[in-house]
Amino acid sequence: MVWDGRMSDDDGQWEEAVATARAAFDAQDFSALIGAELVRFDPGVAEVRVPFREQLRQQFGFVHGGVIAYAIDNAVTFAAGTRLGPGILTSGITISYLRPATGDLTAVATVVGTTRRQAVVRCEVFSEAESGRVLVASGQGTAVVTG
Amino acid sequence: MVWDGRMSDDDGQWEEAVATARAAFDAQDFSALIGAELVRFDPGVAEVRVPFREQLRQQFGFVHGGVIAYAIDNAVTFAAGTRLGPGILTSGITISYLRPATGDLTAVATVVGTTRRQAVVRCEVFSEAESGRVLVASGQGTAVVTG
Amino acid sequence: MVWDGRMSDDDGQWEEAVATARAAFDAQDFSALIGAELVRFDPGVAEVRVPFREQLRQQFGFVHGGVIAYAIDNAVTFAAGTRLGPGILTSGITISYLRPATGDLTAVATVVGTTRRQAVVRCEVFSEAESGRVLVASGQGTAVVTG
Amino acid sequence: MVWDGRMSDDDGQWEEAVATARAAFDAQDFSALIGAELVRFDPGVAEVRVPFREQLRQQFGFVHGGVIAYAIDNAVTFAAGTRLGPGILTSGITISYLRPATGDLTAVATVVGTTRRQAVVRCEVFSEAESGRVLVASGQGTAVVTG
Repeated sequence: MVWDGRMSDDDGQWEEAVATARAAFDAQDFSALIGAELVRFDPGVAEVRVPFREQLRQQFGFVHGGVIAYAIDNAVTFAAGTRLGPGILTSGITISYLRPATGDLTAVATVVGTTRRQAVVRCEVFSEAESGRVLVASGQGTAVVTG
Repeated sequence: MVWDGRMSDDDGQWEEAVATARAAFDAQDFSALIGAELVRFDPGVAEVRVPFREQLRQQFGFVHGGVIAYAIDNAVTFAAGTRLGPGILTSGITISYLRPATGDLTAVATVVGTTRRQAVVRCEVFSEAESGRVLVASGQGTAVVTG
Repeated sequence: MVWDGRMSDDDGQWEEAVATARAAFDAQDFSALIGAELVRFDPGVAEVRVPFREQLRQQFGFVHGGVIAYAIDNAVTFAAGTRLGPGILTSGITISYLRPATGDLTAVATVVGTTRRQAVVRCEVFSEAESGRVLVASGQGTAVVTG
Repeated sequence: MVWDGRMSDDDGQWEEAVATARAAFDAQDFSALIGAELVRFDPGVAEVRVPFREQLRQQFGFVHGGVIAYAIDNAVTFAAGTRLGPGILTSGITISYLRPATGDLTAVATVVGTTRRQAVVRCEVFSEAESGRVLVASGQGTAVVTG
């Protein structure tokens, strides 16, 4: 249970980190508009869930690529936050789309590596389908410490 | 006035292409949720405008990175469509964020090059600020012909 | 000759695939110029090794970023080839550099997901240092089936 | 003639910047191995030229994607240096490959935007062909100020 080595593995500290993260997520008007939830915030990993709604569709009825991009952007930021703390910003993301998404989305972001100043995070996005969970996109992002 | 060389420069044909593009954009529930507009669809260039609204903010009051990512994703797709026609899908996008956005956004996407099967598009995103228009993000994307 | 789960686990077929891959790698003049080796070609994974040489340095004595980019490009292509077969080309790569590389490089590429037409691959690049193996870069790439 | 506002438009200062850049390029062993040249270093723009040689080929006889990646990496870095000065490092690059390269390469990198701490640069790579100059790849990269 590490928070980038700056945090001891005292459970109270990690619980506080989780509370800070949840409060930050809940303060995002855009996440509320989309209906997203931060469903996991563990050392090195964050997950963002986006339940399917008609308002998230593009013209062919699939989930809009912008929703997937939002989920990657946000999951990358929070995953980086599990290592670097809350004073960060996402400097860039890259997304490869694999197939259309038709159901609930989950973006799973995992920290690949960190330096004192930045984190590199990869992120897979899955969609629930009748056949089970399918990978719809894969991305990578970087976040840097601010200030 | 070219539509990928497959279209003559007959104005009627281009007008039809514009109408098809606008109808596709208007059929995107997610674009309506965000409040975005397709404000330009010219050969090789598309622009998507996102007026500022409180629902688009992240926790610090800036426009959420996911909104910027949405605008790039959509502008890239429509710009590619000016060259390749409507039967395409965006295979990937990359975004570098430069500074926070605090006002209305405009994503300007320009086709860099095409082959018969794909287009590479770059996209700059500007935000209106008191000091004028500022660049908040720069991206690149690719779209491929389907079917 | 199918390859990737479409291929029976008949050892002879896989051995032939490995031989085809090695022959392709050995036919790359640029890999010979760099001194790179294909050290792993297993289902879903490929590794490219670049022993340190003075000719690979940039102006500060570190391994040039272009060498790292080469290693990612090539490892991604071969990893995709373990799933899609030899008739592919790499359509794009993204690289985040984490820290300078000072020793032998190993690029480890792993297929994240495939469709019939493309593969998405992630790739970590490690450098040997006195303190052990360190992550110097992380990337992602896509390869598409040709013809 | 600006060097990121930190430099007056005194010609002597710019000449010194160009000399520093050329010396840095000439100190890159890897650029010598490839046979590359820094052919342009103007405010906001840098060009790297890679004359075709057999040692740069992949297995089908085209220029290896790693050579194109090297050219983008290096051109991006030097273009960023025209704005941010020599104390920078490239934090990431993204490349979309459009078509095979069969002749001399030129990577043209242009600064899209800067902040005090970073630059975003786009880069097109052209190859000389019998039919003239063709676009073979398009990329984007970021460089950050060190120290």
